[in-house]
Amino acid sequence: MQSKNRQFKLASRPNGLPNDMNWSFSEEPIPSLIDGEFLVKVKYISLDPAMRGWIREGKSYTPPVKIGEIMRALGVGEVIESKHSGFAVGDFVSGIFGVQAYAKSKGDMVNKVYPTIAPLPVFLSALGMTGLTAYFGLLDVGELKSNDTVVVSGAAGAVGMMVGQIAKLKGNKVIGIAGGKDKCKYIVDELGFDAAIDYKNENVKQALQKQCPNGIDLYFDNVGGDILDDALSQLAMHARVVICGAISQYNSTTIKGPANYLSLLVNRATMKGFLVFDYSQKFPQAIKEMAAWIASGKIQSKEDIVVGIEKFPSTLLKLFSGENTGKLILEV
Amino acid sequence: MQSKNRQFKLASRPNGLPNDMNWSFSEEPIPSLIDGEFLVKVKYISLDPAMRGWIREGKSYTPPVKIGEIMRALGVGEVIESKHSGFAVGDFVSGIFGVQAYAKSKGDMVNKVYPTIAPLPVFLSALGMTGLTAYFGLLDVGELKSNDTVVVSGAAGAVGMMVGQIAKLKGNKVIGIAGGKDKCKYIVDELGFDAAIDYKNENVKQALQKQCPNGIDLYFDNVGGDILDDALSQLAMHARVVICGAISQYNSTTIKGPANYLSLLVNRATMKGFLVFDYSQKFPQAIKEMAAWIASGKIQSKEDIVVGIEKFPSTLLKLFSGENTGKLILEV
Repeated sequence: MQSKNRQFKLASRPNGLPNDMNWSFSEEPIPSLIDGEFLVKVKYISLDPAMRGWIREGKSYTPPVKIGEIMRALGVGEVIESKHSGFAVGDFVSGIFGVQAYAKSKGDMVNKVYPTIAPLPVFLSALGMTGLTAYFGLLDVGELKSNDTVVVSGAAGAVGMMVGQIAKLKGNKVIGIAGGKDKCKYIVDELGFDAAIDYKNENVKQALQKQCPNGIDLYFDNVGGDILDDALSQLAMHARVVICGAISQYNSTTIKGPANYLSLLVNRATMKGFLVFDYSQKFPQAIKEMAAWIASGKIQSKEDIVVGIEKFPSTLLKLFSGENTGKLILEV
Repeated sequence: MQSKNRQFKLASRPNGLPNDMNWSFSEEPIPSLIDGEFLVKVKYISLDPAMRGWIREGKSYTPPVKIGEIMRALGVGEVIESKHSGFAVGDFVSGIFGVQAYAKSKGDMVNKVYPTIAPLPVFLSALGMTGLTAYFGLLDVGELKSNDTVVVSGAAGAVGMMVGQIAKLKGNKVIGIAGGKDKCKYIVDELGFDAAIDYKNENVKQALQKQCPNGIDLYFDNVGGDILDDALSQLAMHARVVICGAISQYNSTTIKGPANYLSLLVNRATMKGFLVFDYSQKFPQAIKEMAAWIASGKIQSKEDIVVGIEKFPSTLLKLFSGENTGKLILEV
């Protein structure tokens, strides 16, 4: 065990893309425990587009990280010391442990995970919030049917690749929008999407018209911006648009609203936002089902793991430049 | 009976606001009938924001009016000649008769109306598509409950004033957004809205914060643009946003999309478009209920009637300048 905790704290709020000046790295003593607490040695830290929202000032679904606070992050790790009756040394756990090497916890919103079921990083991707976001966004919010034409943006990203695979196994036609030939090839050849649209090299609107001649029944949006507008222009009657995220807009000071929103009226369509935490009562059942899909090879989980907690600032930026394929994770 | 039919045809497609050059007025012989047809002497013509959409080129929920065609319009009138077994001379009818003094019909989408129930113009407002749009938009699409905070834009317009009154009689708190002191006074003093926001003289966002301290549960949008964004910024959790129209945008070449749409995500809210024609099976029941509300004084219908079919081009513009209060109707 190293004798020091290593942490990233929020030093200032970014304008646009976060840069090194927005973070402060520090070494601190490993916290000591009081009764009811346990200590987690964090092994893997989840990097999520939502982090950009967490450091923005103002009202949102959760209070912003304060200046000087440890950066909020999901993680998985091992309990190495415990004064808590529910968690024993040697347990593996997932929770909101922050961007740090050691985290003290009282067990709130902490779940045990089992490396016998899947490698630890998978509990941050397919079997974590990422997979659950895809699962509930698609099945519950999007009311996925079969024989739907489903389009997902950010299709080679952590949530998008799960969305596409679940939609496929439920018997739908799935088109993914991703940036670059490699990602497009990957989602079609490896993940079984019916088609991919390379937004960096294709006219997305025309490609959607070609790939979805009868319109889009379900559009799962991770990106916002022009791609959302392109998808809105090609909706089928009674289409459902699931707003999961808007990564193209997170670093902008002004958000581009969807100019084609009146397509909702013309097509009697619905646009719906959601947060996965609202489904926490149903998480165990969903994880069980997802684990079975992974075990049977129906769904693949893919992690893009960067080693070294000190690389947090630069690694986070990979999300916004679109460099990662699959779930971006920092290995402590 | 005058010996000539008088008609407005679409001469060219407008850029921005329609002007006199976009219409051609002509006098034509009154059409003669073949078997299965009847002749309607049109008494009142409905002027609707949707008309701007009908003369726009491109795909929508209904094909655009072609250049040289009689301008599409709803109307009510009297059958003055008939070779149709279902419609007799002396019947009063509503239907899509166009902007003309006499219309030939085969009876498609024509309904009989009864001046004993209400004055003829009311069958274009509270008991016509206008009232039905409010009724189904609010009760079905918006899933109106009671004890909701309901906000409606275009609140002194034909649909808006019905929305507010129905929401009130169902036991909700209702705030209307309208332009000018007279309209605001009217919807509060005469129609019983709880409050009005004068968008021409108030900061709408701040006024919504004040009037809706717990957020907006149901927002019924007739206008789009900045007011839609202001409403989105003040949604309550699980809010429903009903997209009925976007009159502020109809004459623009570029539509302003709602930049605050991510409020749907934060608040787990839904934005939904609809068209009243989809509810045609339920029209008779709805009209019966609305007629009872009118008869008992629970709901007021208000028409803004301009006399003279020749005034069609200038009267239509009153919709977009916000000059009318209540349902704008042309008396032939």
